[in-house]
Amino acid sequence: MILVINDFSTFLGKKGDRFVIKKENKREEFSTNNVEQIIIAAVSSISYGAIRLAIKHSIDVVFLSRGGTPLGRIYPCKLGGTTLTRKKQLEAYYSTVGTNIVKNLVKAKIMNQAYFLKSLEKTRKDINFTSEINSIVNIAKKIPGLTGLIDDIRGTLLGYEGIAANKYFSSLSNILPFKGRDRTSNDYVNIVLNYGYGVLYTEAEKACILAGLDPYFGFLHKDRYNKPSMVLDLVEIFRPIIVDRAVVTLFSQKQINSKCFEKETYGDVFLSKEGREKILSALLSRLNQQIRFKGKKTSFKNIILGESRSIAQYVLGNIPEYEPFVYRW
Amino acid sequence: MILVINDFSTFLGKKGDRFVIKKENKREEFSTNNVEQIIIAAVSSISYGAIRLAIKHSIDVVFLSRGGTPLGRIYPCKLGGTTLTRKKQLEAYYSTVGTNIVKNLVKAKIMNQAYFLKSLEKTRKDINFTSEINSIVNIAKKIPGLTGLIDDIRGTLLGYEGIAANKYFSSLSNILPFKGRDRTSNDYVNIVLNYGYGVLYTEAEKACILAGLDPYFGFLHKDRYNKPSMVLDLVEIFRPIIVDRAVVTLFSQKQINSKCFEKETYGDVFLSKEGREKILSALLSRLNQQIRFKGKKTSFKNIILGESRSIAQYVLGNIPEYEPFVYRW
Repeated sequence: MILVINDFSTFLGKKGDRFVIKKENKREEFSTNNVEQIIIAAVSSISYGAIRLAIKHSIDVVFLSRGGTPLGRIYPCKLGGTTLTRKKQLEAYYSTVGTNIVKNLVKAKIMNQAYFLKSLEKTRKDINFTSEINSIVNIAKKIPGLTGLIDDIRGTLLGYEGIAANKYFSSLSNILPFKGRDRTSNDYVNIVLNYGYGVLYTEAEKACILAGLDPYFGFLHKDRYNKPSMVLDLVEIFRPIIVDRAVVTLFSQKQINSKCFEKETYGDVFLSKEGREKILSALLSRLNQQIRFKGKKTSFKNIILGESRSIAQYVLGNIPEYEPFVYRW
Repeated sequence: MILVINDFSTFLGKKGDRFVIKKENKREEFSTNNVEQIIIAAVSSISYGAIRLAIKHSIDVVFLSRGGTPLGRIYPCKLGGTTLTRKKQLEAYYSTVGTNIVKNLVKAKIMNQAYFLKSLEKTRKDINFTSEINSIVNIAKKIPGLTGLIDDIRGTLLGYEGIAANKYFSSLSNILPFKGRDRTSNDYVNIVLNYGYGVLYTEAEKACILAGLDPYFGFLHKDRYNKPSMVLDLVEIFRPIIVDRAVVTLFSQKQINSKCFEKETYGDVFLSKEGREKILSALLSRLNQQIRFKGKKTSFKNIILGESRSIAQYVLGNIPEYEPFVYRW
């Protein structure tokens, strides 16, 4: 179980080999055998004994801000759970473990773009993306054949990703009022997409940290130093599913209008408070949306966390393969 | 300053931007500007606010056992001080930063062997190590010329190290009752050396952890997985200075005798309690011995910590070169 402590009047202590949570007159005990992670979002104080107990049993302790952002975590000095994960993650970069992660992530991203276009085709009689979808799927099929280390295949892989992205966004430009994806463009769609991807980063960063991955060491985006490049890697697969889907809905339902934006004197366009709120609300409801996955009801948010945990398990060698989430609507 | 808390009746809290230490009726405050590390060896409890304050200001928090062994530390989730150090340490392996560390460590180790033999020659009229010392120094001189990444030069470097070690220990075998260094041998000298190196590891492991280095990721000994290979790297330079020196003294003063050992039925020889205590006492007094270094009086123990901090500073790019400690007696 994951012990979440989010009340300021709580004391986290220990008694023998058990954690004790005291709050006013209530008192609960938890065996170390049942606790795999302690998430501390608020607590009045923690005993030194409780911290030592967690370290002794390699129980991960993560500190969150009041807003839910991970601030820090306790790592055991002996090679244990999370320490090992980060070590293996960095080492994976220089072996085929990293290559497999990168190839599978990019392939899944491209397939998620294709499936999203397919789902749009299904609901809209006026569009036909068949040729673009076929091209995109054909690009995805080339990826498994790539061999070598990450640095050997990055160029080719980014090339494939770029071609697929072009086909994908030029398809979306039949539905959305823009000419295509351009991070620096001032058109409404790109501004909304930028904001949406930003929200997705935050969610993926949390997921990386909770899973024990180093968010600052990615595989595909490794060269972006001081950027959470593992997060940038992870979001790839979720961009179409979470953000692009929400953005298409927002524009189709004409929820995005000029009130959502502010213009600066020199022509730069920004989201207004109203705009930010609209997009955030759409994204959060998408993130919390329940779907059936592996026979269980779960939210997209949980799937993002699950993907991080799978990557961690894969670099640790606990699972034979990392198969990223592909959403077949 | 380094805030060391080692009393069980202490509470570590915060007030505004200051740490507050309460103990019975006493109360002290420390500004975050003055605190670079908090070492918690014992404390009754810590407030969540104090932990958040430390994380916010990238102040390293290390938890020690009652015996002084580092148990765990708090890492900020944002790329900060210690997180960055570990990241850079791992990346150094795959660049010339790592090569330089490895070359300089091995060279310093070999030079420390040569200087130790020289110091023995000075005090003992009956021995002459000049030819061996010259050979050892000549081997050390070859090291700076090696180029490539660690994996390219490791073989050659270990070869040089081996030749120097042979000359060094065959010289010592004129003084010590053994045929040479053999980790698995049952002779008294090798058994005492093994124990001594073990004590040195513990000291070096503490130093690595306190300096923010990952003890499990070394450069020269990288392939020894699940072993604290950074520790094994670091101890190289200190073996002759700390352990070999103490061991030569113990044997020369005839402090080591048959009471120091126990024999098992099948012939294996082990240190007795008395033996362990004698060696430990000799090593601790060597570790605490004050010498003048860089114009200041300091102990060998502090120099070990200083070396770890220098390696950390070097991988971070804060100093242009890592020049390991060479002791010219």
